[in-house]
Amino acid sequence: MSPIRVVLVAPRNPLNIGAAARAMSNFNVSELRLVNPYEVAFQEAKSAVKSQHVLRGAKEYPSLGEAVADCGLVVGTTSKGHRLLEHPLRRLEIGGKIIAKKLVTAPVALVFGSEKFGLSNEDMSHCHWLMRIPTREAHESMNLGQSVAVCLYEIVRNPLAAKATPDPKRAATAAEAERITQLLEEILDHSGYVHARVAGSTKLKIRRLIRRMDMSAHDAEVWLGMLRQILWKLLS
Amino acid sequence: MSPIRVVLVAPRNPLNIGAAARAMSNFNVSELRLVNPYEVAFQEAKSAVKSQHVLRGAKEYPSLGEAVADCGLVVGTTSKGHRLLEHPLRRLEIGGKIIAKKLVTAPVALVFGSEKFGLSNEDMSHCHWLMRIPTREAHESMNLGQSVAVCLYEIVRNPLAAKATPDPKRAATAAEAERITQLLEEILDHSGYVHARVAGSTKLKIRRLIRRMDMSAHDAEVWLGMLRQILWKLLS
Repeated sequence: MSPIRVVLVAPRNPLNIGAAARAMSNFNVSELRLVNPYEVAFQEAKSAVKSQHVLRGAKEYPSLGEAVADCGLVVGTTSKGHRLLEHPLRRLEIGGKIIAKKLVTAPVALVFGSEKFGLSNEDMSHCHWLMRIPTREAHESMNLGQSVAVCLYEIVRNPLAAKATPDPKRAATAAEAERITQLLEEILDHSGYVHARVAGSTKLKIRRLIRRMDMSAHDAEVWLGMLRQILWKLLS
Repeated sequence: MSPIRVVLVAPRNPLNIGAAARAMSNFNVSELRLVNPYEVAFQEAKSAVKSQHVLRGAKEYPSLGEAVADCGLVVGTTSKGHRLLEHPLRRLEIGGKIIAKKLVTAPVALVFGSEKFGLSNEDMSHCHWLMRIPTREAHESMNLGQSVAVCLYEIVRNPLAAKATPDPKRAATAAEAERITQLLEEILDHSGYVHARVAGSTKLKIRRLIRRMDMSAHDAEVWLGMLRQILWKLLS
C-alpha cells in the first residue's frame, strides 16, 4: 500500500466520495481522510458496495492542518491555471514525479477541495505547492472522482513497471517472410495479377509489402496455411 | 480539437455517459460515439448540465464496426490484465505513446465496453490491440468515467499529440481493413480453408490477423487489388 493520503476537504456528494475511494482502491492507495465532510454524504458513501475497505478506514478531521499532520509533503490541487496564486503551481506530469520521489521517504498528502468552491486560501496555506491537471482553459474544472483517478494514475504509474511490457511474441524470421512472399507471388501469377513485363518489379513490391507487415512467427504460420490452401485450389 | 473518437459500447448508466463526456470536454476531445446505448440512459445523459457540446454531437451506431469505420487505429480497453487474450495487450503508458503518434496521421478510436461485461470477443476483433490502465490485480476494474478520464489524460499530455510532424503515410481506415478481411474470408471460403463448423471463430481470427498488419492506406489498396484478382480467378 502506498503512503499517499488522499484528503477531501468538505466534500458534499456521496457519489464523489465513493468514486474517490474506488479510484484509490484501483491504484492501491488506502488512506482516505475527510475534512469536515457533509455528514449525510459520508454515511451514504460508506454504504457503497465498492471499495469498502477504503471507506471503512476513512478518518474524519476538523481541520486540514490536523488531517495532514504526519505528511512530509502536502500538495493542493486546483483547476485554476491562470488565477493569481500565492503558491508555486505545477502541472501534474511534473508534480507527479516530485511526489513519487518524496514518497520514498515520507507520506504525501494530496488535497482536493470541495466540488463547489475548491480550496480556500486558508486551505492552500497548508500546502507546500499546488498542482493542476492540464485540462483546457475553457473547461478546466474536473469532476472530483475523475481528478482523484487521474492524479493517482500519474503518481502510481512506475516508469520501471511500465518498461516491463513483455512481448512474448517471437517475430517471424526473414526466411518465413520470404516463403510467404514466394507463395503469394505464385498465387498472383496463377491469378493473372502479375504481368510478365513488370514481373521483376512486382516481386520486389510484394517482398516489401510482406516485410512491412512486421509479423509474428505465429501469424506467419497462419498466412502460410491460408496461402498454401489458396494455391492448391487454384491449381486443382 | 483532437482526432480521438471515444466509443462507448452498450453503456447503461447515464451518469457514466455524462462523466465520459465531461472528461472529454476537459481534455478537448469532442467526438463521442455510442454503440447500442441503453436509450433511456442516453436521453438522461443528454440533459446533464456539463459538456453539452460533446453530448449534443454524440452519434449512435448499430455496430462497433460502423462506429470505427473512419479510424486508422482502433484500441480496445480492458481491465483484465491476466486473462488469456487473443490480442496484444499494452499498458496505458506505452499504448498512449503509440496512440499519440498515430493521431498525427489518422483518427484513433478508444473503445470502452459496457460497465458490466466489458468488450465481447466480437467487439475486440475490431480492435488492433488492447490497452489497460495499470490498476492493482485485486481490484482491476475501474469506473467507466474515471477510466475515460485517465486514458485521455495520458494521451493528451503526450507532447507528441500536439506535435505536427506528419508521417506522409496515411494509415488504412478500419473500413478498408474490414473490406480486406471480407475479401480474404471469401477467398478462403472458396478454397476450402474455412470449415463450416468453425466459420465464426475463423472470421474473428482473420479480422484480428488483418488488424495486426497495421497497414498504410497505400498497402491496403495493393492488398485489395491482389485479393480481388485472386477471387476473380477462383470464381472463373
